[in-house]
Amino acid sequence: MSDQAGAELRISIDRLLDRLAALAEIGAIEGTAGAARLAFSEADRQGRDLVTGWMVDLGLDVAIDAIGNVIGVWRQGAEPAGRHLAPVLCGSHIDTVATGGRYDGNLGVLAGLEIVETLARAGVTTARPLAVGFFSNEEGARFAPDMLGSLVYAGGLALEEALAITGIDGAIVGDELDRIGYRGPAPCPGPAPHAFVELHIEQGPVLEEAGIGIGVVEGVQGISWTEVTIGGQSNHAGTTPMRLRHDAGYAAARLAVFVRELASELGPPMVGTVGSLRLHPDLVNVVAASALVTVDLRHTDDGVLAVAEKRLGAFLDELAEAEGVRITTRPLARFAPVTFSPAVVDLVESTARELGCTTLRLPSGAGHDAQMLARLCSTAMIFTPSRGGISHNPAEHTDSAELEAGANVLLQVLLRLAG
Amino acid sequence: MSDQAGAELRISIDRLLDRLAALAEIGAIEGTAGAARLAFSEADRQGRDLVTGWMVDLGLDVAIDAIGNVIGVWRQGAEPAGRHLAPVLCGSHIDTVATGGRYDGNLGVLAGLEIVETLARAGVTTARPLAVGFFSNEEGARFAPDMLGSLVYAGGLALEEALAITGIDGAIVGDELDRIGYRGPAPCPGPAPHAFVELHIEQGPVLEEAGIGIGVVEGVQGISWTEVTIGGQSNHAGTTPMRLRHDAGYAAARLAVFVRELASELGPPMVGTVGSLRLHPDLVNVVAASALVTVDLRHTDDGVLAVAEKRLGAFLDELAEAEGVRITTRPLARFAPVTFSPAVVDLVESTARELGCTTLRLPSGAGHDAQMLARLCSTAMIFTPSRGGISHNPAEHTDSAELEAGANVLLQVLLRLAG
Repeated sequence: MSDQAGAELRISIDRLLDRLAALAEIGAIEGTAGAARLAFSEADRQGRDLVTGWMVDLGLDVAIDAIGNVIGVWRQGAEPAGRHLAPVLCGSHIDTVATGGRYDGNLGVLAGLEIVETLARAGVTTARPLAVGFFSNEEGARFAPDMLGSLVYAGGLALEEALAITGIDGAIVGDELDRIGYRGPAPCPGPAPHAFVELHIEQGPVLEEAGIGIGVVEGVQGISWTEVTIGGQSNHAGTTPMRLRHDAGYAAARLAVFVRELASELGPPMVGTVGSLRLHPDLVNVVAASALVTVDLRHTDDGVLAVAEKRLGAFLDELAEAEGVRITTRPLARFAPVTFSPAVVDLVESTARELGCTTLRLPSGAGHDAQMLARLCSTAMIFTPSRGGISHNPAEHTDSAELEAGANVLLQVLLRLAG
Repeated sequence: MSDQAGAELRISIDRLLDRLAALAEIGAIEGTAGAARLAFSEADRQGRDLVTGWMVDLGLDVAIDAIGNVIGVWRQGAEPAGRHLAPVLCGSHIDTVATGGRYDGNLGVLAGLEIVETLARAGVTTARPLAVGFFSNEEGARFAPDMLGSLVYAGGLALEEALAITGIDGAIVGDELDRIGYRGPAPCPGPAPHAFVELHIEQGPVLEEAGIGIGVVEGVQGISWTEVTIGGQSNHAGTTPMRLRHDAGYAAARLAVFVRELASELGPPMVGTVGSLRLHPDLVNVVAASALVTVDLRHTDDGVLAVAEKRLGAFLDELAEAEGVRITTRPLARFAPVTFSPAVVDLVESTARELGCTTLRLPSGAGHDAQMLARLCSTAMIFTPSRGGISHNPAEHTDSAELEAGANVLLQVLLRLAG
């Protein structure tokens, strides 16, 4: 390619915003800018159809694999001799939580398509092909674990196990993939790209608070998800003296308070969350018979994360003893912290600065597909600011100038990686 | 009547058990001895039809009032001159919680029918008529407040307000009464009986622990129900530092722990329960945006109950401030403690002892229709033991010998009150 030409190329923010808006129409949450496209749902299928159609329109060779990951390779953009080299891959995911915004995941995928369109219109070629992909069930809101598609792509979970996973609504991954028509022929694990770069919104308040335009992501926090089932004794709320109770509801509440105490005690960057807590029979005048609680623990240091898990286990033993309740736990997900490729991280930083962006190195507090791809190839991430740190919420927002800057940094990083 | 004849009369436990079993078939919870007949549901309608049919078969004059209370007066059992005197009323309720047992409420109603049958077969007459009734929505599991039917019967709530109450499933009392055909012509408030005696299972562990056969109930604890709505900020569980969170789930859990602390601090007989706690969106990796929590506080001393309510309010103010969440409260029910008629309480005690029963005076920890009827006439209650103190649970159980003793005490108390 001509460095000169390539270095001056910029994406069209209008085309990018148009695609983000069109995708957000699918599963749109009325009265908001957000959307709900839980993995393998009908809305997810419609979103997949829209984005896959765009890939085809842009001349990408689209491959759907056995877990529903979709990767489009742009060979025409590569120089003749290089069209069979491993591509430089970008992308993310297009599934959302039940209360999703329009940028999370979608930005990285649609920025990739916009970059392909920009290069095609400019007639720029690269030594290696470029590719754009989206991975299945990144959110984990319907099926645990999250990042399922990229986990299977990277060989971290056997395909058969993944297809057999049952969701919160009783649906099974394999059945749902068949239903929406996205159980494809491409094999899992998938082929290793030359490199992978994921553009994503920060989903946290750090960049905005620091007044920084581009986050240079050095790695990803470790994540530990545990489902806790508490079995107590259902009883009359008025006649059972406090000393004789085995209240699953109280035990569940005490657990949620402990998670907060644990995070405070271990200190930042430790975070701990009880996002789901369900009681049965859940009636005002009945002491709860049982409770189902999820615990989400994250830290950049795997040793500290292991300490947090150990303390959680010890606390649950004490709680079961003190309250006379039965407590069982089930691991829903466990990922060690990930360190990205120093060379690609440096490239993201230097490229962003050349483009006049302010930068800050930081770890990702959220799990991302990039942490799975990092098992296969040189990988890094680019963050854009999230207003108010809000995400997983229809109010999620990033200014278009920041989206544009992030996409242009991705464009230039891809060009340099593709040679 | 002939004291001799009346004093020797005993009910038939087999007939009573047969009726309890037949009623438990309606809304039966498979694989248990329990049943689910939420107020004004189809199962409740079927239960009402069965019991009302039994009343008619026994020759009672059945009156259904505007809130669905059903009272059957047995005039034939009264001496000619007394057939227009205010009757001596017994009874309770036949609605249940979602996880109900077969005795709660049903015992007091069906024991009354068994007593009428016993007297009729023996040809015993009394100066005053006897009556057996069941009151609507005593449990409050579908429509708040609980004890709704007896509250309206006693004039404690305007009929129009009661008919407009919306249930947890969005149904409206008046509509449901019309649907099941139990919005009757008898006026509310209803006529004052000469006296009211309610036989009921204890629903607590006190009698069993003390090895006592009959509980002589001196009054009912005061009850305070509050619905607490907590509005926080939905956010990403991995990227939001703990210090920046407004976690409605944590606030809800902290409230449930506070209720336990409050009950411990104020000490027995104070009881406090969070039986219902719901989070939204209730997802593992999303900080909860909102929570809906119920608080049930009870004490025999209205002053202490008021202190508990005041401390709850103060705690919620501090919690809202500390967590940066919005907290609103809605009173669901508030009943002051009730003291029963000393004369009737003494009569229950002396009668039980004459029948060779061991007795213990105690307050009721649960709300009962008797506390509403106490506004209209001399009232008392008779408790039978609850195995393990378990109630509002299909495992609820009282030995048949204890049911028989309780029904015989009720029989003799009614005969003496009816003269």
